Amino acid sequence: MFRPNENFNILPPNYLFSEVARRVADFRSQNPGAGIIRMDIGDVSLPLPQAAVSAMRKAVGEMAYAATFRGYGPEQGYEFLRRAICDNDYKGRGLDHISPDDIFISDGAKSDLGNIGDLFGSGLTIAVCNPGYPVYVDANVIDGNAGILRDGRWSRLVSLECPAESDFKPTLPTQDVDVIYLCFPCNPTGVALSVTEIQEWVDYALAHDSLIIFDSAYEAYVSEPGIARSIYEAEGAEKCAIEIRSFSKTAGFTGLRCGYTVVPAALRFAFSNGETASLRNMWNRRQSTKFNGVGYPVQRAAEALFSPEGQAEIRHNVSCYLENARILRDTLESLGFETTGGINSPYVWFRDMNGKGSWELFDLLLHECHLSSTPGVGFGSAGEGCIRFTGFNSRKNTLRTAERLKEKLL
Amino acid sequence: MFRPNENFNILPPNYLFSEVARRVADFRSQNPGAGIIRMDIGDVSLPLPQAAVSAMRKAVGEMAYAATFRGYGPEQGYEFLRRAICDNDYKGRGLDHISPDDIFISDGAKSDLGNIGDLFGSGLTIAVCNPGYPVYVDANVIDGNAGILRDGRWSRLVSLECPAESDFKPTLPTQDVDVIYLCFPCNPTGVALSVTEIQEWVDYALAHDSLIIFDSAYEAYVSEPGIARSIYEAEGAEKCAIEIRSFSKTAGFTGLRCGYTVVPAALRFAFSNGETASLRNMWNRRQSTKFNGVGYPVQRAAEALFSPEGQAEIRHNVSCYLENARILRDTLESLGFETTGGINSPYVWFRDMNGKGSWELFDLLLHECHLSSTPGVGFGSAGEGCIRFTGFNSRKNTLRTAERLKEKLL
Repeated sequence: MFRPNENFNILPPNYLFSEVARRVADFRSQNPGAGIIRMDIGDVSLPLPQAAVSAMRKAVGEMAYAATFRGYGPEQGYEFLRRAICDNDYKGRGLDHISPDDIFISDGAKSDLGNIGDLFGSGLTIAVCNPGYPVYVDANVIDGNAGILRDGRWSRLVSLECPAESDFKPTLPTQDVDVIYLCFPCNPTGVALSVTEIQEWVDYALAHDSLIIFDSAYEAYVSEPGIARSIYEAEGAEKCAIEIRSFSKTAGFTGLRCGYTVVPAALRFAFSNGETASLRNMWNRRQSTKFNGVGYPVQRAAEALFSPEGQAEIRHNVSCYLENARILRDTLESLGFETTGGINSPYVWFRDMNGKGSWELFDLLLHECHLSSTPGVGFGSAGEGCIRFTGFNSRKNTLRTAERLKEKLL
Repeated sequence: MFRPNENFNILPPNYLFSEVARRVADFRSQNPGAGIIRMDIGDVSLPLPQAAVSAMRKAVGEMAYAATFRGYGPEQGYEFLRRAICDNDYKGRGLDHISPDDIFISDGAKSDLGNIGDLFGSGLTIAVCNPGYPVYVDANVIDGNAGILRDGRWSRLVSLECPAESDFKPTLPTQDVDVIYLCFPCNPTGVALSVTEIQEWVDYALAHDSLIIFDSAYEAYVSEPGIARSIYEAEGAEKCAIEIRSFSKTAGFTGLRCGYTVVPAALRFAFSNGETASLRNMWNRRQSTKFNGVGYPVQRAAEALFSPEGQAEIRHNVSCYLENARILRDTLESLGFETTGGINSPYVWFRDMNGKGSWELFDLLLHECHLSSTPGVGFGSAGEGCIRFTGFNSRKNTLRTAERLKEKLL
């Protein structure tokens, strides 16, 4: 008799975005003329860079003729893209210990963040930040690594609390953990860590034989010196960390689907019989078995991002979003909210000083300012009282948001 | 201390294609002028249909302007594509019980065949055909469902033997099995099953509460009446079967990456506590957690395949490959080989009557005819003595192959 994976039965429904949608729809039906601005979305709004459009058009054209048609590509991604990434994002930034063979092209960070658990043995202790991107927890629940949910906590997950008092930064675990998910610049808080701060986590992992899964989907937004864009800026990280990245937020690829994952050759752990496992070889085998690579035109589009034109367009787009975030941040600060993010991140995270809950704040913003937002509690209990605003909307809507906030909340 | 997934340590390396490449390279270095024809590849050679190229170009153009740009799409795929698939491949063929909500767009069959194991509970008995597509076994080894390898057999997998004596068709298991992987028209043997034959498997699954994973990546090659293109042509299959398909072989999408998986609403099994699980809801949650959908331009390209122009181009391409397969099959038959496939499949599967092993035949074809081929034993022990030829090469190379075979082996 077929039995389904029991973990789906203990995985609570994710109500966050459906509840946001329900409340917005309710309000809209009662206030048809309201003109709600969506400051909740984590999706980009600027069009694809022209360099990517041109390269993709050309590649689609190649697919139309037998002489230039390309069928199956390598599961790991084409050499031209792996090399461009390595030369620009690693060697070009002084990270000489990463090679193209360490880089695996993916259809986006979420797939790899979800599938990376295929590398995990059983019975591991896994640590995730609170608040954090819900995929880390949900994927581990599906994979049977989370234990049971008791009083809002998963019995086998370690929650790395990131409370307001510590500037929403996690502190090193006091117990042994085997896997640590980190995302900096952080979704949702927008907090970024310095290389010195990241080094502490790498040192912990090296001392405890832990594996770090480093989600750096927002690295392009790092604008201050000393802030880590890659975990490999920390010494020894190639021996303890996998880095997962995406072109989604860097270059507006949310609708194209392309990212990459770095599994360095030096990342080696022992099987229980003492034999050494190369995680790079394991991930290569996993991807060769359960994945068939990313489409050729999309890989050409990604390659074009590393041309001088592509780099200029990326810088321009990232600057636009960062300026939106700055406007939001300054406005919120001037109104007495405490904020983080918005400097090395497209997200601004804020709370009011009167202890309002996330959903209370959400309703206030919706009813008074006609703004949709993302309640921080949806990212974990430590997000209670907070709201995430996005810098990804248009400048016009960002300015209108700032006006409404000043008009209604001052 | 991080422990890797131990199953990677028991997964034997897949030597098939690397060994083919090694022998071909060795031969080429000793015979530089040989002009080897690759009859081993399972990849298409005709360019992408013009309908798909045009639609994709247009969609890429939309991505270049803010007003028409599309970011994140639904994880399940765009409604326009799910509806086109449903209307054409299901409702249009009399399968009214499949709805667009049952259809999940993927980046190809291999991903979904690999990831579908996320739905499986632990301790299940899983049956796979021998010979068969190696992904079914390898994915289950990675997922810990295969047990240990003893004398070439996985302790917890049931091997559905498909020997030459039974025309390379599997017989119903004599023990209870919980999951059954079937692929018809079959890769590698090219064997197709009638609706009546498929019905026997559906009846078995319904009687035993088993789940069938039906890989119909080659359904477009069905050219004889009465042969099943979809498992849902069998009565009751919507209660016991998931169907996994791809545009790769249908429309030359191997380099674009798009497929789809059908998980009908009626597919329900019990958790151990007696609660009912909807596999459709579970797959939806899995994909929403570990996947972010397929790129918009690729989905528009796939949609265009259902236009009258797209359908005509697909029919033309499939006919070309089938004619290649017919040429190979006729030639091999005339030379005294026993063949299957090549009628409802682009693959021709053959063995000689003198009991030569697969690698012996491979070497003969390489050394005498300068042909590269795929040894059948690479798909499982029951493939020993057989060779897979592909109909996906060009007509010119197919005719040259036929000439060489006649010249050297007659």
